[in-house]
Amino acid sequence: MSTAGDEFALIAQHFAPLAVAPGARGLLDDAALIDAGALVVTTDAIVEGVHFLPDDPIDTVAQKALRVNLSDLAAKGAAPLHYLLVLHWPHTRPAAQIADFAAGLARDQAAFGCTLLGGDTVATPGPLAVTITAFGRPLGPRTPARADAMDGDDVWLTGTVGDGMLGLAVRQGVAGDLSPAHAAALAAHYRTPAPRTAFAAAIARHAHAAMDVSDGLLGDAAKIAAASQVHLVLDPAALPLSDAAAAWFAAQADRAAAMDRLANGGDDYEIVFTAPPAARAALLAAAADIGLRLTRIGHVATGAGVTAGGLAVWGHAHRIGR
Amino acid sequence: MSTAGDEFALIAQHFAPLAVAPGARGLLDDAALIDAGALVVTTDAIVEGVHFLPDDPIDTVAQKALRVNLSDLAAKGAAPLHYLLVLHWPHTRPAAQIADFAAGLARDQAAFGCTLLGGDTVATPGPLAVTITAFGRPLGPRTPARADAMDGDDVWLTGTVGDGMLGLAVRQGVAGDLSPAHAAALAAHYRTPAPRTAFAAAIARHAHAAMDVSDGLLGDAAKIAAASQVHLVLDPAALPLSDAAAAWFAAQADRAAAMDRLANGGDDYEIVFTAPPAARAALLAAAADIGLRLTRIGHVATGAGVTAGGLAVWGHAHRIGR
Repeated sequence: MSTAGDEFALIAQHFAPLAVAPGARGLLDDAALIDAGALVVTTDAIVEGVHFLPDDPIDTVAQKALRVNLSDLAAKGAAPLHYLLVLHWPHTRPAAQIADFAAGLARDQAAFGCTLLGGDTVATPGPLAVTITAFGRPLGPRTPARADAMDGDDVWLTGTVGDGMLGLAVRQGVAGDLSPAHAAALAAHYRTPAPRTAFAAAIARHAHAAMDVSDGLLGDAAKIAAASQVHLVLDPAALPLSDAAAAWFAAQADRAAAMDRLANGGDDYEIVFTAPPAARAALLAAAADIGLRLTRIGHVATGAGVTAGGLAVWGHAHRIGR
Repeated sequence: MSTAGDEFALIAQHFAPLAVAPGARGLLDDAALIDAGALVVTTDAIVEGVHFLPDDPIDTVAQKALRVNLSDLAAKGAAPLHYLLVLHWPHTRPAAQIADFAAGLARDQAAFGCTLLGGDTVATPGPLAVTITAFGRPLGPRTPARADAMDGDDVWLTGTVGDGMLGLAVRQGVAGDLSPAHAAALAAHYRTPAPRTAFAAAIARHAHAAMDVSDGLLGDAAKIAAASQVHLVLDPAALPLSDAAAAWFAAQADRAAAMDRLANGGDDYEIVFTAPPAARAALLAAAADIGLRLTRIGHVATGAGVTAGGLAVWGHAHRIGR
């Protein structure tokens, strides 16, 4: 459990043998299918001091917990339906904060069209932890897996890269000089990432392989490469940066190291996916319809792994304390 | 969050308004329904130092986490299908224990006929916490709710009462003089309760209201009474005790206080349910078929609340440290 690499090995060794249902996809995917109506199910937990900071506003903690799961659904081409909430609430945190926590969920339920289905609450001597299990309706006959990339596909990315990592750096006071507006935008991306729910239908229709970027773009792209047994060739010059990230990048002395950080930073919650070149026009039109930035960042070739010019592939998320 | 009563009030106030799907049952039930194929879904978390002891064998921790959820499914008349696992693993606990943890799950998957579907793992600075979300297949056209008790129903209980509470007392060294066999049986009940999966079909066929007993028989019976707007009249002399619990009870000076503890102790994981008197013979035959003790412990009347002779109704679980 000490590093992400160990964690994956432990899952493969100990838990994958238990996941014998076809819909579990050998625990190699971000969501599971249940054959009762092809419901898409995903679960992700966030823990105080690991995925969010103790002084993050409590409503944004609730929103982040929900949104990281909605991000998984969107990357699987599914529309949110319902979610379960398991809340481990510290003895030491005022119960009065629960109202703000619920208010954050209420806003996001309305924004993303899903409703709470049930859950469990536990008073804990440990840190605040929020586990969400989300259920989605597939928007097409296919639910894109990590394993579905094909030689010759384009590689696409929604939104931008590195804002989550920079938002954490802002919150930790180590981002350097940034305008107040840029700092606020980055911190907001870290606290309340934007799940690409509105793009899920296009993913369902056009994507071959797809997953959400939570542990860094390059490391997550490497997971697609491994599952699909292909080589993802990314163009580092094509990686899209937000205005705030571009301003940060321009101020860095070591540009190569800076781009490594952006391309491997956690908490992006964008979608990286592959699709056939024939889908280019349709994908760009679908993104334009909803005002979503969509960038072709590379292509799929025969071989293995991910390359992006000279960028390093870290393979794990940048998180608090790492 | 400081007491179970506060928790229920907080849920009713803050989270029930979010649970607008009919299948969420206003967060007043133990499982949720999804209309995609009428899958039964439940989630429960167990936390080190709250629901189990730090030195409990790790395989039994895994089994308990799964079984408390399978108990919910059985009480809803559903057969286990799949489950999701979210594991908050302390930095300080050896990763080598994961193998034993998984072995416990593997045994129970085989015993209860379900498979792992997915999940999430997080290294945490806090206590070990295991969250399971379980999915079940309804075994009949109805999924018994807490709210379905009817005036004139019998009230039934599977198994016995108080063994979980006594098992914790054994583990904490405060159970008094017990034979080694009795002490071992009680500790085993606390660590690895027996979900009544084999009785789920009878529940689906005959029960009106049903729920599993996790927070104490009388408090849980009171939840059925409140949801169904009826009065549950229980006969304290009818409450079934295991041989071990009977031996403990016989040694207590204050019998009334002792019976209060048994009837309000947590971690029973039996099923309390109501059914029409016409179903008596069929229920007893179904229980006899699988060697399950089944006891008629009272009846449903008009009115409100639960009464059991002079027994107190605590309304919350006996847990570690309470």
